[in-house]
Amino acid sequence: MPESLEKLILAMYEKDIIKFGKFTLKSGKVSFVYIDLRTTISYPDIYRSICDILSHYIQQHQLQFDRVLGIPYSALTFASSIAYKDSLPMLLRRKEAKAYGTKKLLEGEYQANDICLLIEDVVTTGGSSIESLKVLTKHHIKVTDLVCLVDRQSGAEKHLHAYHCTLHSMITLTQILDVLLSHQKIDATQYQQAITVIEEE
Amino acid sequence: MPESLEKLILAMYEKDIIKFGKFTLKSGKVSFVYIDLRTTISYPDIYRSICDILSHYIQQHQLQFDRVLGIPYSALTFASSIAYKDSLPMLLRRKEAKAYGTKKLLEGEYQANDICLLIEDVVTTGGSSIESLKVLTKHHIKVTDLVCLVDRQSGAEKHLHAYHCTLHSMITLTQILDVLLSHQKIDATQYQQAITVIEEE
Repeated sequence: MPESLEKLILAMYEKDIIKFGKFTLKSGKVSFVYIDLRTTISYPDIYRSICDILSHYIQQHQLQFDRVLGIPYSALTFASSIAYKDSLPMLLRRKEAKAYGTKKLLEGEYQANDICLLIEDVVTTGGSSIESLKVLTKHHIKVTDLVCLVDRQSGAEKHLHAYHCTLHSMITLTQILDVLLSHQKIDATQYQQAITVIEEE
Repeated sequence: MPESLEKLILAMYEKDIIKFGKFTLKSGKVSFVYIDLRTTISYPDIYRSICDILSHYIQQHQLQFDRVLGIPYSALTFASSIAYKDSLPMLLRRKEAKAYGTKKLLEGEYQANDICLLIEDVVTTGGSSIESLKVLTKHHIKVTDLVCLVDRQSGAEKHLHAYHCTLHSMITLTQILDVLLSHQKIDATQYQQAITVIEEE
């Protein structure tokens, strides 16, 4: 693992962005580790590091796309920063249609058959990513790749693949747990509890 | 007016971001000019120019604040880019509380009495800005300044002042209309129709 990723994992643990306890995920499942990337916005070093890691990956792997879309809200902030940094045209998916103005669920300018790169903070089963993918497909926009910071390894890769979308994750939950265990931030019990969710998939 | 602002106004007109016709604003009022900054995200040159103009103003005027918050959705993208560029800690206001996870209406880390700089795309009466200001005040965060790209000159300055918040706008609607008229993009009738709304205030 690159040093920048290891440093990021430890910084996120220090700032309670990676938390241990008992949490209910969006999917309804109980997890013993919660990754709350929403608070990264308040820590410029961490925030910039995440945006830089994603941006670097996108460039290095020469992903092909016409537009970029960050899934609200965390990844919307990452995508906005990457779009600014790398001069990428962006689309924006709002969660609710506006009652006034031009009333769109998808904001931005695009053409039929444009390819849109999805950016996500954390994927678990891939449910909310697929929801955004479907909104784009309905607008005749193709989604071939999704780049995320963390893959919780609970089926997202397989589920996205069914929609012909490749998942690119910067780090997996297992890698996070390995780093935290090796730096003695968590003990073997916490490691085992957190990893069990993955094994159940 | 700086050349960068004049260039931005003309570019926004070319891309239909500034439109002439008959539109109903959020306030319920009818307007003959509509400024739809949401599509700026798809035009990297325009998008970057807006972020740079706002960032430059914030630095040049040495505004004092602990956190920055962009009002969703357009200004949320601007604020994210500025936060990345200038290493500023950010807060994020979501429109609806999440049904799962940590259930917050205000995301990010902060302390009581922190000062939060608001960023907005367009202000008209100031209604939605004040809505965000109130959410922050309820969380014991102070709002002393709001920076926006366009002031439609329909009372925002006065209304924000009542909440001890200073409005800093980069351009006014009158300035936009003056630039478009002098470049013969609109005629005297369009100018007169669009300016009438301001005069009615």
